[in-house]
Amino acid sequence: MSHPPKPAPECPFEKRYPSALNRDDRYFMELAYNRAIDAWRQNEVPIGAVIEYGGEVIGQAHNQVESTNDPTAHAEMLAITQASDAIKNWRLNEATLYVTKEPCPMCSGATMMSRLKRVVYAVPDPKMGGLGGLYDVNSYPTINHSLEVEIGLMQDDCLQLLQAFFQLKREMGKTSI
Amino acid sequence: MSHPPKPAPECPFEKRYPSALNRDDRYFMELAYNRAIDAWRQNEVPIGAVIEYGGEVIGQAHNQVESTNDPTAHAEMLAITQASDAIKNWRLNEATLYVTKEPCPMCSGATMMSRLKRVVYAVPDPKMGGLGGLYDVNSYPTINHSLEVEIGLMQDDCLQLLQAFFQLKREMGKTSI
Repeated sequence: MSHPPKPAPECPFEKRYPSALNRDDRYFMELAYNRAIDAWRQNEVPIGAVIEYGGEVIGQAHNQVESTNDPTAHAEMLAITQASDAIKNWRLNEATLYVTKEPCPMCSGATMMSRLKRVVYAVPDPKMGGLGGLYDVNSYPTINHSLEVEIGLMQDDCLQLLQAFFQLKREMGKTSI
Repeated sequence: MSHPPKPAPECPFEKRYPSALNRDDRYFMELAYNRAIDAWRQNEVPIGAVIEYGGEVIGQAHNQVESTNDPTAHAEMLAITQASDAIKNWRLNEATLYVTKEPCPMCSGATMMSRLKRVVYAVPDPKMGGLGGLYDVNSYPTINHSLEVEIGLMQDDCLQLLQAFFQLKREMGKTSI
């Protein structure tokens, strides 16, 4: 028997408005943070991802597992599909993925399969992370690719968002997540 | 500069016609094998996947990375998305995935994220496999799921398909894969 989903708790965090004149790592991570807020407002686990290529955003998405009933609809997967469609090439060799939490095993694998140049993630995940937290898919020489990985940019902001979401969901009663 | 894709080498293998009266593991793997032949005929690496639930096929797909320019368009990913859409639930707890080659790091992660009950794969992959070949994503207790995994059903048939495809591609000149 399925129950109608509970409403999202109100999001107490605001989006950021970084200047597009300074397109550094923080700029793109703030855009990813904004996508995580979009996720929250749609009652999805607040994780956001942005893909940069040549200084432009070619993919950006938030987690949509619940609304689509699709376990593959993580922010990173959706952003990778968008980005490869944008440049009509599944090899994203010159692109960087910014994501608010360390990619899960599926998404960590996808960063390798899509041959991304670089992954920047905010919050390490020692229970589920596949890029250094639990294990490191980037450490196997037989996988014919290796990534540059940077960890911890905007970690406190992105962690606070995740922790507050789950805490408010718990306070609202049993979650569907 | 991009070149038009080379045509697929002609596929010397035939599809199977298993009896639907006996829906055992081999039946579903033969359907996955047929999807791998579909992949070959579309000039994609011949890997196929089928998802069974309650004796019925609720997802079946073949690799489509080249034709869609999408690095996430592996057979397993597409079949998982189909299956969860078919039952309107991203948790595939009672379903079995049949796939002709050991899932890559991305797809191995997806078997966990989708909470599949069982994975049956034909050809182990010691270079890239994430369910026992190179590493085993199913071995980490902090990932809140574990799978039953069976290895080697129709291994020779599925390996022959892969090896012949790459050999014929090499003979046709430099491949785009």
